[in-house]
Amino acid sequence: MIHATIMAGGTGKRFWPQSRTKRPKQVLSIGGPRPMIAETLLRLEGLVPVERTTIITNAEQVAPIMDAVRPGAPPNIIAEPFGRDTAACIGLAAVHVRHVDPDGVMLVLPADQVIGPPERYREVMAAGIQIASQSDALVTFGIKPPYPATGYGYVHRGEPVAEVNGAPVFDVHGFREKPSREVAEEYLESGDYYWNSGIFCWKASTILHCLERFTPELYAALLRIEGAIGTPTEDTVLREQYEPLERISIDYAVMEKAETIRVVEADFHWSDVGSWASVARLRADEADGQGNVATGLSELIDVEDTLVLTDDDHLVGVIGLRDVIVVHTDDATLVCSRDSAEHVKQLVDALEKKKLDAYL
Amino acid sequence: MIHATIMAGGTGKRFWPQSRTKRPKQVLSIGGPRPMIAETLLRLEGLVPVERTTIITNAEQVAPIMDAVRPGAPPNIIAEPFGRDTAACIGLAAVHVRHVDPDGVMLVLPADQVIGPPERYREVMAAGIQIASQSDALVTFGIKPPYPATGYGYVHRGEPVAEVNGAPVFDVHGFREKPSREVAEEYLESGDYYWNSGIFCWKASTILHCLERFTPELYAALLRIEGAIGTPTEDTVLREQYEPLERISIDYAVMEKAETIRVVEADFHWSDVGSWASVARLRADEADGQGNVATGLSELIDVEDTLVLTDDDHLVGVIGLRDVIVVHTDDATLVCSRDSAEHVKQLVDALEKKKLDAYL
Repeated sequence: MIHATIMAGGTGKRFWPQSRTKRPKQVLSIGGPRPMIAETLLRLEGLVPVERTTIITNAEQVAPIMDAVRPGAPPNIIAEPFGRDTAACIGLAAVHVRHVDPDGVMLVLPADQVIGPPERYREVMAAGIQIASQSDALVTFGIKPPYPATGYGYVHRGEPVAEVNGAPVFDVHGFREKPSREVAEEYLESGDYYWNSGIFCWKASTILHCLERFTPELYAALLRIEGAIGTPTEDTVLREQYEPLERISIDYAVMEKAETIRVVEADFHWSDVGSWASVARLRADEADGQGNVATGLSELIDVEDTLVLTDDDHLVGVIGLRDVIVVHTDDATLVCSRDSAEHVKQLVDALEKKKLDAYL
Repeated sequence: MIHATIMAGGTGKRFWPQSRTKRPKQVLSIGGPRPMIAETLLRLEGLVPVERTTIITNAEQVAPIMDAVRPGAPPNIIAEPFGRDTAACIGLAAVHVRHVDPDGVMLVLPADQVIGPPERYREVMAAGIQIASQSDALVTFGIKPPYPATGYGYVHRGEPVAEVNGAPVFDVHGFREKPSREVAEEYLESGDYYWNSGIFCWKASTILHCLERFTPELYAALLRIEGAIGTPTEDTVLREQYEPLERISIDYAVMEKAETIRVVEADFHWSDVGSWASVARLRADEADGQGNVATGLSELIDVEDTLVLTDDDHLVGVIGLRDVIVVHTDDATLVCSRDSAEHVKQLVDALEKKKLDAYL
């Protein structure tokens, strides 16, 4: 049976001041009318039943996430006691799947991506699920790049091996780090490279076998955790086993080492919405004649290509600026050049250092 | 006897969002620790006793102004029922002075200027008071221009006629409108031009005689108002007489037409603080190594020559910008390029048109 694992543990510092420790990116309504986590669940309707859908996050975020998915049937939720990157996170989800369904197939997806249209998304996911169900392959989904992005990792495809639901499936030559502009343009031109979406599909048994082979210490911990599922010591064992784990990503731990990998070509719109600058891009269709996107009460004079987010009570006036991002919240306001959107993280780190906890 | 008339009727739209209809520029603490009106009163200490000092403003601003001058002995206050520019305002003040002191001398000054040091200010004012007391001259105070400003009117001085307290006094050739850059540079080079400070000194009888001569309708109205001072109909008469008055400035009504004008050279620091850009200039001595001036809770990354005003509860983060002004208040925030600081007025006008009264 197919199970969905939604990874929702990030904090999304780049979306400060809207995102906070207890209001992470995935509960914000970025790029759609609903919180990103709710959009993610909605997209799975008809593909994976909610009772076999699990959100994996950290203890602090359980409450805001449950709030964000209401109304609607609540999915299962697993709280990681510590953040230990995606290899541990996926391993933990996998032992939970194996525990209830030894032959279970897992669709693993981040909670904070903007994707559409949902119909095509479901067809492409179904293609990957079919490949993963019928083999021991690790299936990834590669986004056909619409432009030479330098902010994403890439998948280098190999020979074609199948086509399902109109989605071609390829062997994988390898994974590539975020490229330079020049290299990204070569990738785009060759047609052989996809954006690495971070969405995966595999049997729980397959990924656990890979973890046993490539990260035996992690696997040993996972076995102990699996043994305690449903027992009174479940939480204690989880904490004990999790705490000393190395932080390592699934890409580094498994994907770059495994042999049988397949990439399904995904031709839906996809964005990982990494910063306020990408929100401005995503919402470009709402822009006025000067390229400005504004929500809430605002007044713009001689302003171009600017994003202004406020509410209907707090007025933001902007004059004589371009390529700026203004995000107002009750207790904090960000004013940032579009080119500096990535540095919002640095700002949050600076607040952390100053122990301005109320604003984190 | 010397009397002081402080003109405090402006709204200071250019200081939105701090300035509002009921919180005008003169009650803001711009360029000093106290509200501008309080600083103005303090500057007069030892020069004009508070019981002979009158603030003239509009009805809406009486309460915020009285709040702003506390603690301290309250000055007299006259509320104009309608704003009718400076000729009417000064005429009204003059009949009140004449009513209690027919030979009284008036020092007339705006409430919203930044001036220092106070010691030198008082010496120069005393020089003007002496000239006005001993003659029927209209005395103005001309600021020695430190740079070729294009935002101020100028006074063209004539022959020297006296020197009091080390301040030379000149005849006046004429008044000049705000000049072009080129002309302002010529003015500066010649040494014969002063900034028109908008500070005046004259006998009440002298200015009223001028108003009788140059603006007979205004003078007739003032006579009727004077006749009602201290009677039960005072307020009614004031409203009736004031309402139909033409809006005309004292410069246009009198100064450009009168014969006997003297200008006292003022060598104190003076600024009329016309916009947020001039606040940034005024407070340049508080700037950090990157030319930023910030009050309240803020975090600046890769920011230069920027003014950030907020409080200790609302955090403002700015990244990757220069020459910007950010002013946060409880219900409105301004983000503006330094070059656009004059256009804040347009923004307020736009809010007015949209009937966003809560933000005016």
